[in-house]
Amino acid sequence: MTNFRLTISYDGSRYSGWQRLGHTPDTIQGRIERVLAEMAGHAVEIHGAGRTDAGVHALAQVAHVRLNTRLSPAEVQAYLTRYLPGDIAVTGCEAVGERFHARLNARGKHYRYRIWNSPIPSVFERKYLYQYPGALDLERMRQGARLLCGTHDFRAFCSNRRIKKSTVRTLHSLTVERLGDEIRLDFHGTGFLYNMARILAGTLVELGAGSRSPESLTAALESGDRALAGVTLPPQGLFLVSVDYDA
Amino acid sequence: MTNFRLTISYDGSRYSGWQRLGHTPDTIQGRIERVLAEMAGHAVEIHGAGRTDAGVHALAQVAHVRLNTRLSPAEVQAYLTRYLPGDIAVTGCEAVGERFHARLNARGKHYRYRIWNSPIPSVFERKYLYQYPGALDLERMRQGARLLCGTHDFRAFCSNRRIKKSTVRTLHSLTVERLGDEIRLDFHGTGFLYNMARILAGTLVELGAGSRSPESLTAALESGDRALAGVTLPPQGLFLVSVDYDA
Repeated sequence: MTNFRLTISYDGSRYSGWQRLGHTPDTIQGRIERVLAEMAGHAVEIHGAGRTDAGVHALAQVAHVRLNTRLSPAEVQAYLTRYLPGDIAVTGCEAVGERFHARLNARGKHYRYRIWNSPIPSVFERKYLYQYPGALDLERMRQGARLLCGTHDFRAFCSNRRIKKSTVRTLHSLTVERLGDEIRLDFHGTGFLYNMARILAGTLVELGAGSRSPESLTAALESGDRALAGVTLPPQGLFLVSVDYDA
Repeated sequence: MTNFRLTISYDGSRYSGWQRLGHTPDTIQGRIERVLAEMAGHAVEIHGAGRTDAGVHALAQVAHVRLNTRLSPAEVQAYLTRYLPGDIAVTGCEAVGERFHARLNARGKHYRYRIWNSPIPSVFERKYLYQYPGALDLERMRQGARLLCGTHDFRAFCSNRRIKKSTVRTLHSLTVERLGDEIRLDFHGTGFLYNMARILAGTLVELGAGSRSPESLTAALESGDRALAGVTLPPQGLFLVSVDYDA
């Protein structure tokens, strides 16, 4: 068995997310496993670094998979390119040590939430943006971003109310940048709770729109109460940009 | 009646092209006319500067339309934004003089053909690129582009074999540029024959791939024989970028 590390780009629009779960109709993990099982002639389990939700995209998801094959990494990649649908692409494939685990070895992740801040829809990127036509005060959003950075209990920013494990995470940075009509929120952190990036984005939009105060963010963090945080923005604006590992 | 000038952006993927023709199922012109007729309460005819083919996109198509309405241009634009599907956007709307005609007054057009020159598909722009994985010699393509520029009879670069009007056009410039894995062909000209940009692009790709010589381009131009020019590349890589008018 050889352990392969894959880098994967996907348009999540028509999938039920990354993770294969029982009879979930169509997941990215399931699609890749099916192609690799056909190639290797044995059952295959692929482990992704991040379990992106339904409709969320990835520029460079990382996964590992053990395969009993004599094919070279380049040949495995070419096989996947040939049989995967056009909305999933394997952009990198290499043989790695037995002990490499895409999720357990990940030191951090970079997520991006893209907001289209214009009353005129973006025709070509409409599936990759959340449109917010109103005015947004970026300085207020940056002020909120600074309050959210650091190590906190992010329980209020998580959709899973029954979570029993620790909800403490470290957000290394959260930047708010305007590029023409687009506003990009870039999150770098050790890990992200269920829907955390989308709730953080929703909270910052409410802050930028003036419908909440910077103090309300501190209150949400301290209370751990989901009701005190902002709305969960839709999945199509969210991208898993990259996963960080030790060199 | 007020004459309105519209600037329109569209993803042509699911349309039978710009022009409404009899019972053609779904065209961009037909979609916009239906919304405006509902708004104005009278039959509406919209005239576009360029009749893009099925599957071809536009960044800034220009059209004019006479409407019996008291709505301001901003209100007309807002109405269109509200009722048009997400793959058609009106990015500009202004009241213009009675005599403005989008097609007859156009001095020239800018088309772009986008080639994805990589063996790995582009996930997010797959509907807006033509993938060519092989090696392409850009210097040879630029050499061919120089031969094609100027005023020529482009009959060999036209899919309509029964054309009776003049097939002489002026190609002001044709640039070949690489941006990462993308190769962009930018055509500026007085007018374009049926499929002309796509046949010019196909001919330049054959030249860049080494399967034809620069001399064969001159032979095609001089003969007027469609069989001597290159293949018609698929529509999804083609964009009407802009239409030029006198200031």
